[in-house]
Amino acid sequence: MMISLSPIGTVKNNLQVIEGDNWDSRISVIELLDPLTDEALHGLEDFSHAEVIFFFDRVDENSVETGVRQPRNNPNWPRVGILAQRGKNRPNRLGATIVRIIRLSGRTLTVQGLDALDGTPVIDIKPVMREFLPRGEIRQPAWASELMKDYRVDKDIK
Amino acid sequence: MMISLSPIGTVKNNLQVIEGDNWDSRISVIELLDPLTDEALHGLEDFSHAEVIFFFDRVDENSVETGVRQPRNNPNWPRVGILAQRGKNRPNRLGATIVRIIRLSGRTLTVQGLDALDGTPVIDIKPVMREFLPRGEIRQPAWASELMKDYRVDKDIK
Repeated sequence: MMISLSPIGTVKNNLQVIEGDNWDSRISVIELLDPLTDEALHGLEDFSHAEVIFFFDRVDENSVETGVRQPRNNPNWPRVGILAQRGKNRPNRLGATIVRIIRLSGRTLTVQGLDALDGTPVIDIKPVMREFLPRGEIRQPAWASELMKDYRVDKDIK
Repeated sequence: MMISLSPIGTVKNNLQVIEGDNWDSRISVIELLDPLTDEALHGLEDFSHAEVIFFFDRVDENSVETGVRQPRNNPNWPRVGILAQRGKNRPNRLGATIVRIIRLSGRTLTVQGLDALDGTPVIDIKPVMREFLPRGEIRQPAWASELMKDYRVDKDIK
């Protein structure tokens, strides 16, 4: 079974290559593609956050991992399965990131904190609803906290 | 541009049709498909939650919405764009839900709170990391809180 998707939009920002970790402060614009009109986004500005699902189009199909590896090839971290990490070289090459909604204007949505490069195809945009966030305590291994420590806005803005 | 995806797994549960809202207590099993092996999930049990991206395969392509509609056709709610709601009749027909990880055994992952029917194709599984959750206060319109009020586990378990 194959599933065919068409991009609904395109990411516009000033990032051509992956550099550093401080994604959380970055501003991107998502421009909807035909046949979608501004109607598709109507009302999204009443939400503070959205989830953006996008396609890692710069990842070559042959570099997709299916087994275990050290996240970011960091020798200090354990070998874990590709579905136990969020790296881009994953089956189906989809990213999913929660962003802040900054502004909506016609078919153009401005967001903060999207970890995608300029030109990335957007597959879906969903509003974040409180009730869909994790219920109960969140637990994660030490390597994940370490990997994510530079992802947050705090350092970048200070 | 078209993007082709292959399912990485299949949802197994006892839900053949959509009935009611109390998804959060429901247990499902995700079975990985070839060529993925148990390696792909290795280490996921160290996380409390995962995000499952799946394909709404029971939604006919012709019933996909691209403009505005009242969520769940409820006349009390405002007309909002399909990308400002999480309904299944959306462009590309992808669902994305955060679930609790209950058990991992070989290629079989047992989860709680997946709002997908039996046989649903799974496209991706990602670990939930605290740092990827919304930063800052979460705001959502009244209709969204109302729609979600029966989604939580609380009622179902009491």
